Amino acid sequence: MSARLIDALATTGPLAELFSDRCVLQAMLDFEVALTRAEARVGVIPKTAADAIASAARPDAFDTAKLVHDTFRAGTPGIPLASALTEVVRSKDASAAGFVHWGATSQDVADTALVLLLKRAQPILADDLTRCERSLGRLSEQYRETVMLGRTLLQAGPPVTFGLKAAGWLGAIRRGAERLDAAFDDALVLQFGGATGTLASLGENGAAVAQALADELGLPLPEAPWHTQRDRLASLLCSCGVLTGSLGKMARDITLLMQNDVAEASEPGGDGRGGSSSMPHKQNPIACSLALAAAQRVPGLVASFLSTMVQEHERGVGGWQAEWPIVSQIVQATGVATASMAEVAEGISVNPERMRANIEATRGTIFAERAATLLAAKLGRASAQELVKEAVRKSSKEQRRLTEVLAEMPEVASHLDAETLRELEVPEKYLGSADGFRKALLAGRKRSGKKER
Amino acid sequence: MSARLIDALATTGPLAELFSDRCVLQAMLDFEVALTRAEARVGVIPKTAADAIASAARPDAFDTAKLVHDTFRAGTPGIPLASALTEVVRSKDASAAGFVHWGATSQDVADTALVLLLKRAQPILADDLTRCERSLGRLSEQYRETVMLGRTLLQAGPPVTFGLKAAGWLGAIRRGAERLDAAFDDALVLQFGGATGTLASLGENGAAVAQALADELGLPLPEAPWHTQRDRLASLLCSCGVLTGSLGKMARDITLLMQNDVAEASEPGGDGRGGSSSMPHKQNPIACSLALAAAQRVPGLVASFLSTMVQEHERGVGGWQAEWPIVSQIVQATGVATASMAEVAEGISVNPERMRANIEATRGTIFAERAATLLAAKLGRASAQELVKEAVRKSSKEQRRLTEVLAEMPEVASHLDAETLRELEVPEKYLGSADGFRKALLAGRKRSGKKER
Amino acid sequence: MSARLIDALATTGPLAELFSDRCVLQAMLDFEVALTRAEARVGVIPKTAADAIASAARPDAFDTAKLVHDTFRAGTPGIPLASALTEVVRSKDASAAGFVHWGATSQDVADTALVLLLKRAQPILADDLTRCERSLGRLSEQYRETVMLGRTLLQAGPPVTFGLKAAGWLGAIRRGAERLDAAFDDALVLQFGGATGTLASLGENGAAVAQALADELGLPLPEAPWHTQRDRLASLLCSCGVLTGSLGKMARDITLLMQNDVAEASEPGGDGRGGSSSMPHKQNPIACSLALAAAQRVPGLVASFLSTMVQEHERGVGGWQAEWPIVSQIVQATGVATASMAEVAEGISVNPERMRANIEATRGTIFAERAATLLAAKLGRASAQELVKEAVRKSSKEQRRLTEVLAEMPEVASHLDAETLRELEVPEKYLGSADGFRKALLAGRKRSGKKER
Amino acid sequence: MSARLIDALATTGPLAELFSDRCVLQAMLDFEVALTRAEARVGVIPKTAADAIASAARPDAFDTAKLVHDTFRAGTPGIPLASALTEVVRSKDASAAGFVHWGATSQDVADTALVLLLKRAQPILADDLTRCERSLGRLSEQYRETVMLGRTLLQAGPPVTFGLKAAGWLGAIRRGAERLDAAFDDALVLQFGGATGTLASLGENGAAVAQALADELGLPLPEAPWHTQRDRLASLLCSCGVLTGSLGKMARDITLLMQNDVAEASEPGGDGRGGSSSMPHKQNPIACSLALAAAQRVPGLVASFLSTMVQEHERGVGGWQAEWPIVSQIVQATGVATASMAEVAEGISVNPERMRANIEATRGTIFAERAATLLAAKLGRASAQELVKEAVRKSSKEQRRLTEVLAEMPEVASHLDAETLRELEVPEKYLGSADGFRKALLAGRKRSGKKER
Repeated sequence: MSARLIDALATTGPLAELFSDRCVLQAMLDFEVALTRAEARVGVIPKTAADAIASAARPDAFDTAKLVHDTFRAGTPGIPLASALTEVVRSKDASAAGFVHWGATSQDVADTALVLLLKRAQPILADDLTRCERSLGRLSEQYRETVMLGRTLLQAGPPVTFGLKAAGWLGAIRRGAERLDAAFDDALVLQFGGATGTLASLGENGAAVAQALADELGLPLPEAPWHTQRDRLASLLCSCGVLTGSLGKMARDITLLMQNDVAEASEPGGDGRGGSSSMPHKQNPIACSLALAAAQRVPGLVASFLSTMVQEHERGVGGWQAEWPIVSQIVQATGVATASMAEVAEGISVNPERMRANIEATRGTIFAERAATLLAAKLGRASAQELVKEAVRKSSKEQRRLTEVLAEMPEVASHLDAETLRELEVPEKYLGSADGFRKALLAGRKRSGKKER
Repeated sequence: MSARLIDALATTGPLAELFSDRCVLQAMLDFEVALTRAEARVGVIPKTAADAIASAARPDAFDTAKLVHDTFRAGTPGIPLASALTEVVRSKDASAAGFVHWGATSQDVADTALVLLLKRAQPILADDLTRCERSLGRLSEQYRETVMLGRTLLQAGPPVTFGLKAAGWLGAIRRGAERLDAAFDDALVLQFGGATGTLASLGENGAAVAQALADELGLPLPEAPWHTQRDRLASLLCSCGVLTGSLGKMARDITLLMQNDVAEASEPGGDGRGGSSSMPHKQNPIACSLALAAAQRVPGLVASFLSTMVQEHERGVGGWQAEWPIVSQIVQATGVATASMAEVAEGISVNPERMRANIEATRGTIFAERAATLLAAKLGRASAQELVKEAVRKSSKEQRRLTEVLAEMPEVASHLDAETLRELEVPEKYLGSADGFRKALLAGRKRSGKKER
Repeated sequence: MSARLIDALATTGPLAELFSDRCVLQAMLDFEVALTRAEARVGVIPKTAADAIASAARPDAFDTAKLVHDTFRAGTPGIPLASALTEVVRSKDASAAGFVHWGATSQDVADTALVLLLKRAQPILADDLTRCERSLGRLSEQYRETVMLGRTLLQAGPPVTFGLKAAGWLGAIRRGAERLDAAFDDALVLQFGGATGTLASLGENGAAVAQALADELGLPLPEAPWHTQRDRLASLLCSCGVLTGSLGKMARDITLLMQNDVAEASEPGGDGRGGSSSMPHKQNPIACSLALAAAQRVPGLVASFLSTMVQEHERGVGGWQAEWPIVSQIVQATGVATASMAEVAEGISVNPERMRANIEATRGTIFAERAATLLAAKLGRASAQELVKEAVRKSSKEQRRLTEVLAEMPEVASHLDAETLRELEVPEKYLGSADGFRKALLAGRKRSGKKER
Repeated sequence: MSARLIDALATTGPLAELFSDRCVLQAMLDFEVALTRAEARVGVIPKTAADAIASAARPDAFDTAKLVHDTFRAGTPGIPLASALTEVVRSKDASAAGFVHWGATSQDVADTALVLLLKRAQPILADDLTRCERSLGRLSEQYRETVMLGRTLLQAGPPVTFGLKAAGWLGAIRRGAERLDAAFDDALVLQFGGATGTLASLGENGAAVAQALADELGLPLPEAPWHTQRDRLASLLCSCGVLTGSLGKMARDITLLMQNDVAEASEPGGDGRGGSSSMPHKQNPIACSLALAAAQRVPGLVASFLSTMVQEHERGVGGWQAEWPIVSQIVQATGVATASMAEVAEGISVNPERMRANIEATRGTIFAERAATLLAAKLGRASAQELVKEAVRKSSKEQRRLTEVLAEMPEVASHLDAETLRELEVPEKYLGSADGFRKALLAGRKRSGKKER
């Protein structure tokens, strides 16, 4: 449990663990050990030194509080880590100590450690995304015929189905997951360039050591070090931002459906979710509120990262030093949003009766467009709209059904028979392509055959 | 010329034209005309009506100032556009007027118009990116052997080549261009859903009209309308943000190289560039300053857009209404940054003599790492570093060359001979994998064969 | 009418006019004319030259499109403006031409012009804020006894009054207006420093000319030029950001109250507001949507400006060049949000019957806290909460009033008599300090007498 | 030591301690204890209960990891804290347990705890700001006659003094400190409103308890609860943002002065500062890099907070839940930036010789403006500028002093005598109002007597 109280709503969960001192330290040690192994393989340092370093590089041997302090003073975790590791090794094998961190610069270990942490974050996020997508797919099927109000600018409009709504969420989240995946694949590459990105201190062996190091760590080797070219990381964080936005949209919709006055759906409670310290009757949309909180925090964090991209020459002064907290917060916020909405998708309760009742409560006015369309064919659009607006006004004022009012208007009655008027208000008769769209979203393909994953 | 004085530094160029009233109006009319053609093809409206509407839909027929005012009142450009077009048509063919905007909602026309504008922006951006990439490739080849200081945290470090530096810029910009292209391909899709995204008012004909409309406009048809799923647009704007960050990094580097005290490179002047109203001697980095300005403005704009993604139900209240200015500003800022850095890449003057002189001015201290590495093999890393630090201190204090000082130290002299010490300071001998990295960046491939464009 | 279609929702209104080419040009000319007058007064240039320049400096004499282009090339509007003015003067009085822009740098004219524009924006914003505050004060009085649901996390809670809600909006908006005013007062100062901020080219006369110039323009003279110290401007824009956030909060509340399912209040329509191109029955919250759009756009714009504050040495490269579009967009967005909410505050319709009905619809469950409090005094808080939760569950399941259910529970009945239970559900009896808070908010003072404006 | 490795560069220092689990927990307990004391004083609960609760409310009695988990589930720290405290009390005095958290809502304890933490942050920030201001004042005096290049767009311009530069930093930082102070005073107020902000559960006693609670905690009582009116907090964070921008500007300047090619000033090393893991010769600007990192991170965080301001009705869903991490990160970043620049201001080494040498290296071209001004009086501005430009070109091309070149030009020689030309290049003779500005900045007053703090 690594999250802290002040950040609890933003970071709790397995990703918090990932960014704990222990995991960060371990990732840096993984780099240092792999580096010595790679160098031993290439013959740059003695294998005995590599072994000694590997056996010394255990997180428990380090004083984390001191590392934090020294990192702050040094402006990078790489220098104190290399120093501390050197000391630990020296206490066991003095001759090996000199080979710690050989040929690397502090940014090499820091960046690669970050990449290793992100690599571990990828499947955690992917799992929750899959849970979320799967549940949304199921919901979309289950409620494919469940009609509900369409709502534009929070005003009632012609009906949709809950199945279509869930499919819309699914489509965006799946596209987001695909972008995230692609961005992870792109960003998860080794960082190894030495002092100014030329691996000069390794002489002729730079390329061979880099390849061996990449192999050791299971990371692809990029064309070149990327000490001040942060576009891959930036792109990854942007994809987190877009995904979190889509999750936030789903959360917003559900909080709106969950209002007592609407009551069409409700996120699940359980395990401490939803209560109030002062109001025993409350069932609060906690999971949704956390996803919404993420969707409000992340855009600014993405902006912060994009701002840091302007890094000077071969190592930035300020930009690079700003990155770690931004990355860890964005990734964790994405994780909280994803896990929250997966929990919601899996446990949401849907109230089809109330959905229909809320349609009913509009007294047919949401079918005004339909009436206008039918009449427009006879009277022209402008006259039809004018007529229907008048009917809507009357219906509102007198709190009567729209069709009743329409039936009394001679211009209407002469064009629309009773049967047509009756059918006008049946939501199921006015769904257009809703189910076609729903199916296409579930199938996940653009209908004109554009490229897919 | 559509840019305004207040926005001149942010929007001047062909993209400003694109977002001018005339072009925006034309794009909306393109949608309306294509819609009627599609509906006539499918048989939903009479072909004569479609023809009448097409012939009436000329930008000159509209009062733009009134459209702007009405758009502000209506909260969308779609409603006043449809009304105004209806009036124009009515004045020519009353029977056709009723078929204007048939089955569409205001967001359909607004979103598709935006997509059409973005589609025109794509090749403009691509052209400047190509110019930039091509020139950087040429520069990288031309200066592949030109040594210069590596600089980390703005402090001198071991040498790099200007060829490598240019290749680093190229790599990031090319990756950014590829992401941008992919994001354009993804985002440039038709919007067409009617009132609540079901095309209900078109009954059975929704899908056919949508396909015909997509064909008319040359836009792919997405799985479903995306009235409140803005992830594709968001992703496009993020890719603008990342690219602008990479362009800003290049611009920052060049402004730093252009300092009088450094004087290693200079952006081109010409056509009003670079002067000062008070200082006749100045040659200012104007193009770079505009790219940097873009790189500082765009992150916040990206955050704004990501914030708007949380759009309610079937049409957002606030989020959607915020989009247009954000999109136009991000795209134009990206355009200004790209065009500026293309201009710089094409005209930059590079001063290899000064680059070498600036290396010389460090009196060999930047080769301290090299000395330490050589000595470490003999003395262990810690002792070597201590020794070299002492030598650097002495070199700084006495303003003498590092190798002179080192040569006087007995622990050094016993391990490094005169020849080695002499060679220690030759930049060309300490470039490691610089040219390998450079070539890989030019070739544009990760060396371990990961997926490419 | 200076707003453009692409920015119509963000910039329409008198502030758009303010940032039009004509006004920006006029403000720059105002600076140049005042400068020559000041210099003539101090005796730095001949009075005849000042007169000639003043009579030449008419906006009509300038080619705005050329100015925009030249500004883009020069990276500042100051250089082309000074050149163009010199040419205009030269054509009338060659001897005067040399005194144009004497002793100033391009940033002096650009910054002071911006300050002059902002000075004109202040009363426009203040007027709409006053309208808004006045109407909210009136609403708060009018509806001081109108009970409605309190809603937390969008779930129903104990009642509040609409008068308190309006007073809450008022309090935040008034505090925001006060901060804005103070920030305007702080930021509206002359910029005048010459090339590097020392007024060196004016020799001994710098201070005198600066004071005379400040007097001419009616602007206070700051301690020193502020070419790269942008904190006053930043602080002004932040106060716009905070105010827009408070306006957005009011707008969000009203869009929620305006949902058909809630129907407790409605923003006014009129002059093109609120319709739909496809749905004749709609009354959309357009004014609120524009305020919300502003509240979503502005935070990112504020971030952009704060990012630009890191300006180098005596004139920034990138930061300064980024400012104008950010400033004009933030100020205009604040203006749109303010005007929109003033319109809403003046015309909102409130539906007290529906407010009461929505309380009724909760069947008394929102008084669960009250029941728990009453019982807690007898049974302890934990038991009381458990008991009431049970009652709430039963009430929900059986769709019965909470008090009915409670009355049937022996543990309750033994502690709360029928009279108490009846009164439990009377909203007016459970308003606590609502009206005290409301009055204090209207009076605008912290109750413990802390410092005020 | 509460900072973590991943956030070490952003949070280390006393403020990290402040936001540690222990301090956050303590602050929440302080609220709960003060609440019971206040309620006992007013007679709402028994004094014995208050005493029992006070004696039980010790941080050690709580399981922080569980609190973090429960906070995540509950969506607020207030509910689990109240529950846990109730349990702790119950184990000691069952009858008192029921009075824990009496009349409060979870946001009351969370918000007030945050305010208490911010109240403790204020003097920590103020101390470092005072250190910074004092040292800058001293530097400005000490180097008041030390000439150096003015630099605009990173190009050399007429001279300034280091004293003026330091005074410019001081002015902005002091204004920022004043704004911060005022914003703290405004924001540090009690939160206490109960379920929906009416204190209904306290009946007639709400106002009295609120006042007593405010007294207990030493916090002013605002007009009303501010559960969803976050403008005071927003304004405080904005003032952090502006201040951090000004600190970042100072840091940027110093990193530029510290470049080897410039070498005019250098931040102090010591206690682990400034080294490199690969380059023994390096003295890196670590403190400046941390301030710059803060200046790049904070704008996005400010945007995040402004975005959260749109909070629904009586308690927000998403906005409020997003706040804590944003607040703690902004405040800590401001703290790191302030402490870093205080350290720099106290220990900076300044190199007046190099400053003069860098002026010399421009061969007098930076006095081109001066030459042009002198000549303009004789030849008119345009001719003078043309002439001087020609001389600058020649001076650059032939690498000769500008005055030498000028002296050879007949048009110049006939107007400027040898003495004037000699003096042209003396930096001290071309400082204009530099020292007047410097003194005014130190004195901290606008010269035209506008209102001050």
